[in-house]
Amino acid sequence: MTDGADRALAYARDHRDSFLRHLEELLRVPSVSALPEHAGDMRRAAALVRDRLETMGVSAKLIEGDGHPIVYGEWLEAEGAPTVLLYGHYDVQPPDPLELWTSPPFEPDIRNGNIYARGAADDKGQVLTMLNAAESYLRGQGRLPVNLKFLIEGEEEVGGRAVEGFVSSHPESLTADFTQVADSHMFAPGLPTLETGLRGNLFTEVYARGASHDLHSGLYGGVAPNPLNALAHLIAGLKDRDGRIQIPGFYDDVRMPSDEVLRSWRQLPFDEESFLRDEVGATQLTGEPAYTVLERIWARPTLDVHGIPGGFTGHGAKTVIPAEASAKISMRLVPDQDPGRILELFRARVMELASPGIRLEVKVLGSGKPVEVPSDTRWIRTAQNALRETFGRDTLLARSGGSIPIVGLFAEHLALDTVLMGWGLPDDNLHSPNEKFSLENFQKGTEATIRFWDLLAA
Amino acid sequence: MTDGADRALAYARDHRDSFLRHLEELLRVPSVSALPEHAGDMRRAAALVRDRLETMGVSAKLIEGDGHPIVYGEWLEAEGAPTVLLYGHYDVQPPDPLELWTSPPFEPDIRNGNIYARGAADDKGQVLTMLNAAESYLRGQGRLPVNLKFLIEGEEEVGGRAVEGFVSSHPESLTADFTQVADSHMFAPGLPTLETGLRGNLFTEVYARGASHDLHSGLYGGVAPNPLNALAHLIAGLKDRDGRIQIPGFYDDVRMPSDEVLRSWRQLPFDEESFLRDEVGATQLTGEPAYTVLERIWARPTLDVHGIPGGFTGHGAKTVIPAEASAKISMRLVPDQDPGRILELFRARVMELASPGIRLEVKVLGSGKPVEVPSDTRWIRTAQNALRETFGRDTLLARSGGSIPIVGLFAEHLALDTVLMGWGLPDDNLHSPNEKFSLENFQKGTEATIRFWDLLAA
Repeated sequence: MTDGADRALAYARDHRDSFLRHLEELLRVPSVSALPEHAGDMRRAAALVRDRLETMGVSAKLIEGDGHPIVYGEWLEAEGAPTVLLYGHYDVQPPDPLELWTSPPFEPDIRNGNIYARGAADDKGQVLTMLNAAESYLRGQGRLPVNLKFLIEGEEEVGGRAVEGFVSSHPESLTADFTQVADSHMFAPGLPTLETGLRGNLFTEVYARGASHDLHSGLYGGVAPNPLNALAHLIAGLKDRDGRIQIPGFYDDVRMPSDEVLRSWRQLPFDEESFLRDEVGATQLTGEPAYTVLERIWARPTLDVHGIPGGFTGHGAKTVIPAEASAKISMRLVPDQDPGRILELFRARVMELASPGIRLEVKVLGSGKPVEVPSDTRWIRTAQNALRETFGRDTLLARSGGSIPIVGLFAEHLALDTVLMGWGLPDDNLHSPNEKFSLENFQKGTEATIRFWDLLAA
Repeated sequence: MTDGADRALAYARDHRDSFLRHLEELLRVPSVSALPEHAGDMRRAAALVRDRLETMGVSAKLIEGDGHPIVYGEWLEAEGAPTVLLYGHYDVQPPDPLELWTSPPFEPDIRNGNIYARGAADDKGQVLTMLNAAESYLRGQGRLPVNLKFLIEGEEEVGGRAVEGFVSSHPESLTADFTQVADSHMFAPGLPTLETGLRGNLFTEVYARGASHDLHSGLYGGVAPNPLNALAHLIAGLKDRDGRIQIPGFYDDVRMPSDEVLRSWRQLPFDEESFLRDEVGATQLTGEPAYTVLERIWARPTLDVHGIPGGFTGHGAKTVIPAEASAKISMRLVPDQDPGRILELFRARVMELASPGIRLEVKVLGSGKPVEVPSDTRWIRTAQNALRETFGRDTLLARSGGSIPIVGLFAEHLALDTVLMGWGLPDDNLHSPNEKFSLENFQKGTEATIRFWDLLAA
């Protein structure tokens, strides 16, 4: 390791408290991209990130479009060294159901070495490991060993339309040697992990419309089309009880990983029983019986319903046949499924499943291609070395069932490979109440990033 | 007609404005029994009704229990004359979706001879025809021709537990010759109608529970049980697309009306095309193909879903697999189905339809027996005469697909027949936005009630 990296590591160790204060400040901003009433908070969060970059010496600005702003920053003075395009997001999922949080979602609370808040792990804590590392170099020794471009967006949780437009229309400003994404997780505490694949997704909302206005279920029940009953038939027709999707052609392009990769997954330290008990907490796991749990999550597509707005969802009884209802239905996709092609198949199947008297409409809320990361690149090998130095053990190559649509865009528009080096843990409660982030990982992530950039320049 | 009735009719005609002001005052109180935050409004509405009874000379009080108060009033000075137990309710359905109302639901607005407000037809406007009629006698000539007991409850829209407890535990205080219920509708404008049957109902909420907490659909999709997908399979398994209920034994006790009654229904002035276009406004009607539209509504049981709380129902996307979701499912029942027996069959079928990893629980939110009213009683014949005098044409004997659970209770606990003489119209938008009540029917209902009581005493 170089003296520069040593100085940066010393700076990082000396500034743990300051790093934590920056994280708490960002977590206090309810930057919920899905909810229009938080538009002002989105701008506040973006400005916080930009200001911190500016303060440490990275030239930064907000890119405004028709969505939430993108924070863009760059430091390009490491002549001859690689250029890394860094990606993360400052937006968060809605925090509901609020009543299940132990401490309020936007009042960060530290308990047992974790910081609890919406967005702690997804993705503010992870984004800040990159900012911490950059600050450690710039303040610790005055310069960085590599060139950096920061792309921190505000719509990752709602489809990322603004960043998609920016990446596809300004590829020249984003040229780099590879991208580094801090929005993933380690296989288990203390086990450094690089992710080599992500599922894609296709998030839809299917609207069902019957009568022209809500009707009384006594006076019209038996003859009036009921959009909620119709959506139930629709959803039941899309996936059977065993988790097999019933959309003709849906599985045609699914390409399972090689036997070698599947064998390596079976050697991972995964205990199905404790996964069921500690992470899921249901009576049993579900899904396609022919596949292992990790195969179902990492290499098989699936379909889930996230909410069914419509009718009366308050306390008690209301005998209404609603005029309209909808179902939020998403599919997770795997190589080589294409979201556009899947949308065609989905739409055709939905129309086939329409009930009498019900008009259906499919709207797309977001989509992203599945991603496979080549694991034999210089960047991956260097990341493995940085992780080994930081955690003192070999790196696992795993996948994630989650989706980061931007990674597919980077491959498509910039022809860049990605290093998915992240610091979340499986029990971080992403998208759920009591989301948390390990403070040890916050620091180790910062240190591993410092080492990674140092080794890249060697 | 007697002089007393003439004086009462004259009073009613002279006090139209005052009757309307009373109605507006009651409609301004958002007495939504389903929503706990309206508990104070429930008391205000009950007090308004009680005070008006007291002011006109009916001895009245609030009966307090563990639910919303019941207004009870009595005037028993017509020695030797029949005693009528009058029933109605002062509670209303929730007003949502608010954005579809032309004028706010609790700011009564008069347009084209109708008064628009939540509860206008169901049931405040109808309840007040009985109070108007009583006031017309008591103020117009100082006494009533019959004895009256008023039972105006506040939980009709939420299962009526308080009034059920009161009726079953105090049958002696409610002795009467028959009951008169003003909570039904006329077959069409200008066509006086007595209802001779009501469907019963069984309103349930089925809870589905999977994981111990909400999960991220990327990280767990494919193995985590999804309560929303499971509820879709459940609902789809309860009723097929053609409206046939798939609960073993469900139809066993269904007794269709006699051929004579069915023939009379086919002679009613019912136009399926305009019913579809003007009342329902869908592309087609649905339901069991073997039955006519009126048979499906009046004489066939059905099952509808009213809302599916759970997951994310806000704007946009949230990739959550909720830990819990529920479905509000009600069944309308016909003679001789028994809600208790149907509940057993329903529960058994629900458990049969459970998906892997999902625990189900059935809660009952309300129920009521189906009702058949004998049409050859003295009370019905007298009502027909009063209606003929008021509307100038013969009375239709029809049914309603709706439910008034109290009518079944009156038969069971008090052994009383019921006269279902009501003033709603088919397009009153009960339980929907823009509920209305015809001001002409408000007055004619008052006058018909005045005549009915006069003829009863003859």
